[in-house]
Amino acid sequence: MKHGFTTTVLLALFFSINSVLLTLPLRADEGMWTFDNPPAKQLKDKYHFAITQVWLDHVRLSSVRFNDGGSGSFISPNGLVLTNHHVALGQLQKISTQEKDYVADGFYAKTETEELKCPDLELNVLMSMENVTSQILGAAKPAMAPKEAFDARKAAIAKITEESLKKTGLRSDVIPLYQGSEYWLYRYKKYTDIRLVMAPEQQIAFFGGDDDNFTYPRYDLDMAFFRVYENGKPVHSENYLKWNSAGANDGDLVFVSGNPGSTDRLQTMAQLEFLRDVSYPFRFKRFDRLVAMLKRYSQLGPEQARRAMVRIFGINNALKAWGGEYKGLLDTALIAKRQEGENAFRDKVNSNPEWKNEYGSAWDSIAAAIERSKSTFKQANYRNLPGRLAGIATTIVEYVEEIKKPDGERLPQFQDAKLPSLKFYLLSPAPVYSDLEEYSLADGLQESLEELGPNDPWMQTVLGNKAPQEVAKELIAGTKLADPKFRKELIEGGKAAVNASTDPLIVLARKIDPMARTMQQWREINVTSAIDQASELIGKARFAVYGKTVYPDATFTLRLSYGTMKGYPMNGTIAPAKTTMYGLFDRALSFNNEGEFALPKRYFERKDQLNLATQINFVSTCDIIGGNSGSPTINEKGELIGVIFDGDIESLPGRFVYDETANRAVSVATGAMMECLRKIYDAKALADEIEEAGVHTASK
Amino acid sequence: MKHGFTTTVLLALFFSINSVLLTLPLRADEGMWTFDNPPAKQLKDKYHFAITQVWLDHVRLSSVRFNDGGSGSFISPNGLVLTNHHVALGQLQKISTQEKDYVADGFYAKTETEELKCPDLELNVLMSMENVTSQILGAAKPAMAPKEAFDARKAAIAKITEESLKKTGLRSDVIPLYQGSEYWLYRYKKYTDIRLVMAPEQQIAFFGGDDDNFTYPRYDLDMAFFRVYENGKPVHSENYLKWNSAGANDGDLVFVSGNPGSTDRLQTMAQLEFLRDVSYPFRFKRFDRLVAMLKRYSQLGPEQARRAMVRIFGINNALKAWGGEYKGLLDTALIAKRQEGENAFRDKVNSNPEWKNEYGSAWDSIAAAIERSKSTFKQANYRNLPGRLAGIATTIVEYVEEIKKPDGERLPQFQDAKLPSLKFYLLSPAPVYSDLEEYSLADGLQESLEELGPNDPWMQTVLGNKAPQEVAKELIAGTKLADPKFRKELIEGGKAAVNASTDPLIVLARKIDPMARTMQQWREINVTSAIDQASELIGKARFAVYGKTVYPDATFTLRLSYGTMKGYPMNGTIAPAKTTMYGLFDRALSFNNEGEFALPKRYFERKDQLNLATQINFVSTCDIIGGNSGSPTINEKGELIGVIFDGDIESLPGRFVYDETANRAVSVATGAMMECLRKIYDAKALADEIEEAGVHTASK
Repeated sequence: MKHGFTTTVLLALFFSINSVLLTLPLRADEGMWTFDNPPAKQLKDKYHFAITQVWLDHVRLSSVRFNDGGSGSFISPNGLVLTNHHVALGQLQKISTQEKDYVADGFYAKTETEELKCPDLELNVLMSMENVTSQILGAAKPAMAPKEAFDARKAAIAKITEESLKKTGLRSDVIPLYQGSEYWLYRYKKYTDIRLVMAPEQQIAFFGGDDDNFTYPRYDLDMAFFRVYENGKPVHSENYLKWNSAGANDGDLVFVSGNPGSTDRLQTMAQLEFLRDVSYPFRFKRFDRLVAMLKRYSQLGPEQARRAMVRIFGINNALKAWGGEYKGLLDTALIAKRQEGENAFRDKVNSNPEWKNEYGSAWDSIAAAIERSKSTFKQANYRNLPGRLAGIATTIVEYVEEIKKPDGERLPQFQDAKLPSLKFYLLSPAPVYSDLEEYSLADGLQESLEELGPNDPWMQTVLGNKAPQEVAKELIAGTKLADPKFRKELIEGGKAAVNASTDPLIVLARKIDPMARTMQQWREINVTSAIDQASELIGKARFAVYGKTVYPDATFTLRLSYGTMKGYPMNGTIAPAKTTMYGLFDRALSFNNEGEFALPKRYFERKDQLNLATQINFVSTCDIIGGNSGSPTINEKGELIGVIFDGDIESLPGRFVYDETANRAVSVATGAMMECLRKIYDAKALADEIEEAGVHTASK
Repeated sequence: MKHGFTTTVLLALFFSINSVLLTLPLRADEGMWTFDNPPAKQLKDKYHFAITQVWLDHVRLSSVRFNDGGSGSFISPNGLVLTNHHVALGQLQKISTQEKDYVADGFYAKTETEELKCPDLELNVLMSMENVTSQILGAAKPAMAPKEAFDARKAAIAKITEESLKKTGLRSDVIPLYQGSEYWLYRYKKYTDIRLVMAPEQQIAFFGGDDDNFTYPRYDLDMAFFRVYENGKPVHSENYLKWNSAGANDGDLVFVSGNPGSTDRLQTMAQLEFLRDVSYPFRFKRFDRLVAMLKRYSQLGPEQARRAMVRIFGINNALKAWGGEYKGLLDTALIAKRQEGENAFRDKVNSNPEWKNEYGSAWDSIAAAIERSKSTFKQANYRNLPGRLAGIATTIVEYVEEIKKPDGERLPQFQDAKLPSLKFYLLSPAPVYSDLEEYSLADGLQESLEELGPNDPWMQTVLGNKAPQEVAKELIAGTKLADPKFRKELIEGGKAAVNASTDPLIVLARKIDPMARTMQQWREINVTSAIDQASELIGKARFAVYGKTVYPDATFTLRLSYGTMKGYPMNGTIAPAKTTMYGLFDRALSFNNEGEFALPKRYFERKDQLNLATQINFVSTCDIIGGNSGSPTINEKGELIGVIFDGDIESLPGRFVYDETANRAVSVATGAMMECLRKIYDAKALADEIEEAGVHTASK
């Protein structure tokens, strides 16, 4: 359930259609709460737990965001970080080679010197949150047209982030919350020297494979350990979560602190219907094709299979999640619940003449903007060059153009405050697989040709009179962009260097850049700005009608969820709150220890040393979604009892509506992690470091 | 998923509304086939298995019907029979006392002398099948009205069964198949001296309780062993299934030979709609109330809880099955499939003028009869006296009246050929719990009062001016029917003795008997005979249109199912074909070894001696339903590899439509039965007897 890889894709798909506040008084255990507005009342009323600022600060500063999509936490004073194996997967793949496959075989550094540096992993710790709503919204004057207001807000955001970066040296992001009716400045401590300490075999981390993904009961050891370095040394992480191998038990209050990627709980019915009728069917079509392409490529040989594996994993993960979400959208009860919510909200707005006048037309404005967006849906989604090298080429061409403009007028991702992270990505030394690049590009162009037709101007620009395969072959064979040094020269050489370049991918990116800009402009005027403005109005209406009693939709920023460790009704019976390592062996042998259900050999070799009654996975009612992967699961004392790695199949419609009946977050339990570190992986030094920093000293 | 207890109830509920043939060409692995018409072609085409008459005869003669609802098989030459614990449950309860609870504690007879005789268990072995369609249908002349034809067929059935009994000494039943378009004479060898050899604790037999009932993956040891005696000695059972502890594996062809209770696959849409709109909602209302009553009673003390437990088990079992079936009826896809089938069938009938003239109106006749039935639905279902004693009283009063009539004119259950089994039931020495009788009767009368109102003549006859509780108290306190000797005197004394009796339950049964007869008469004229006639026409139409390529609906008679041992898609992932004993410990500990998920102590004490990799349960695509409980699961060689004990939750709509995707039959594997007999229960003599008669000699 990793969030990562889909982020950029989704942004493109949705035209940044923002969602709108609708929710009525909350049910128990619902919510992904910002740390400035924790659910203190709910915790007190339901759990008699008085949450304190000290507790909140400690948990926040112990929490880590994995910038390529995921969460984690510090678990020792020496910069040791725990996350999921599947959050680490991209980096594991990048440091693997044909000879040494850390994904399949796992890795353990007995000493710090053996730890492996990740090529392009950025970690963030949220240091502060500041409400900057008045500065941002104040920048747009009432008389302005939507597009003018849009530009004014963009400029204000750039100014605030740039000033903050200069002043504090911290990564500074302005985050729209409550559908753009609030804006917050989040400052992050950023780390880029991250080293791998330990990862188990993917077979045990992703035990059960695509089949078991997003389901429960579960038996996965989805864990990975990194260490954060600064100036060549492990950081002293003052705030870290104390490990408690005893875990938790049925009925216990638990918390999750992490970065849920996105939810659509507050969108209007028009937006939901767009998702159901246009967006999801489109995604299935596109990504099914992508998987088919990658599987064909994988069949070329074992090294090709290794290269494609992480992408296939990511796409299948997304497809299964979307499948569950889409089922939610097709569920008439879910849609009826949302419709009732919207009707009640609009009725309240319309019953007050002042509100009606100010906010009443916002829903129709959104519906109209969505209708307009459909006319360019195909162009917006099929006029792109797939693959990592093509993405780099396009970004460099945009970069040299944008960088000349005043900060506030640039495309958001090129604003000064974003440049360090952007360059970290552009200059990543991670390996490039040219054959896979060519394969992907060829199939992507073929797909665009089928969808746009040969007469589409973009298509003609890209292909000329050639076939997609031919164009892809020439582009990838001719480009030098696989070399980070070459990219660096282009970036530093600026527009002159890019204009002079004869690199075929750069030449092509130059040609199509104007068309992309025209499309971007059209969308900002006709869609994005109108939806932003209407959403902001609906957000304000919500505050007027219901007060600030709820949480904003997820934005891949730090949130706190709470709930109970608790089973649930499942497929005719009940699912238990937890599973044990007995179940791991049962499920492996039930499937003849084959395929995705095969255990690494050493599990059988060392079975008799294991305490099979040890808890391995558990579920809680905590409200999470993709992006929360790797989040610490925490008890009342702020101790670590597990790491979030999945939701159950019943949680997938949670993107639209949280239903406590069966929506569950799935964690790996500390107990099984410690048991296996010691008895399967002989990772004594790591286990000792964790337990010495923890609260529970197990017999060693 | 026991069939037993619901049979009589269901017959009352449905007015014996027979179902009608509809099915089109069969899917793979579908069908509950009679032994005279096995699916030889399907087995050859799909599995390359040539089924032989020798194989069929051996399996048939090794199969046993438990007459109170269930199936079983001979597994040694010394009359040893295997069935489910939950099929044995009623007898276990009847031989238990306040001091010795064999249900909770289990039982094992180390020697034959220790075996415990069951009070009223009848076992049947199907010795022969004879097509008597022409005699039965020929008895009804074309000129007859439906009711006349109904009576003529009834008389012909009585004559055939009585003649057969006299001639062969075998229990003889005439079975309507294919919705009454065929009639078959089934002759059974009958055994009534059945002794308990071994039963484990209910905790392990019904591990997971109501929650896990009708679901999978599963970890139950739902087994019980009986021995069949004749003339005080174990019978020599020439035909028995050889035990194979090695079991089967994924993809293997397997068979089930047993007695599926009833299915509704061939009913008309009008009949399905009646089930959906009237029958199922009625059942939920009635049985929810029954459970509530029994739970109140159970709270009076541990002995009361013990007494009520078996009934609660049975009702909850039925309620869960009905819940799954009802879900099927509410499934628009299922209903659409059935509607399409009916439409196609009727179109074919109507396209042939001769068929149209002969059969075309049958569907409307059934719809009209169902419509008529609704006017007396409440009277038919609420004018009854609940409880075992009241049932005995009613039956005795009917008996002495019916026995005077010519055999062919009696109510079917009082025909000569049925009398031995009827008396076996009426004279059973099984204990009667007077307090529970009173409790049930009081609540049942209260329910009737609420439904029928105080002015209903039956209600007035039963209550007079008294309250239900008062009447129940007087009836149960005053009756001597708990004593089998008293029942015997009444039966032998005939109508004179019954008329002279002042036993209050007999007096009341006499008073209400005429009303019941009037209702029975009304139903036969207005509903049953019309539906029987129309159903027979539809059955004939089906043979005309499709030929005899399918199997009849289930009738609690011996059938053969076949299929593959095979997992299936389940709740977002896949269920394995089998489970292991590791999973038993996982599920117990996942629920803290508490409640229905607690294991008997000795499982933990002896855990280290067990091979936990042993297969415990497995699933196959074999087509089964309640009544199949205890059926042997058999491999190609005719060896025993398991015992059927349940279907998965996805199998419940199988009452109406078989869908191979996820409809699975669940068996206990021979492997775990043997492992536990030897290592948990120290049942060496039993295990040796089984294995010496078997094909696989495991290390002992």
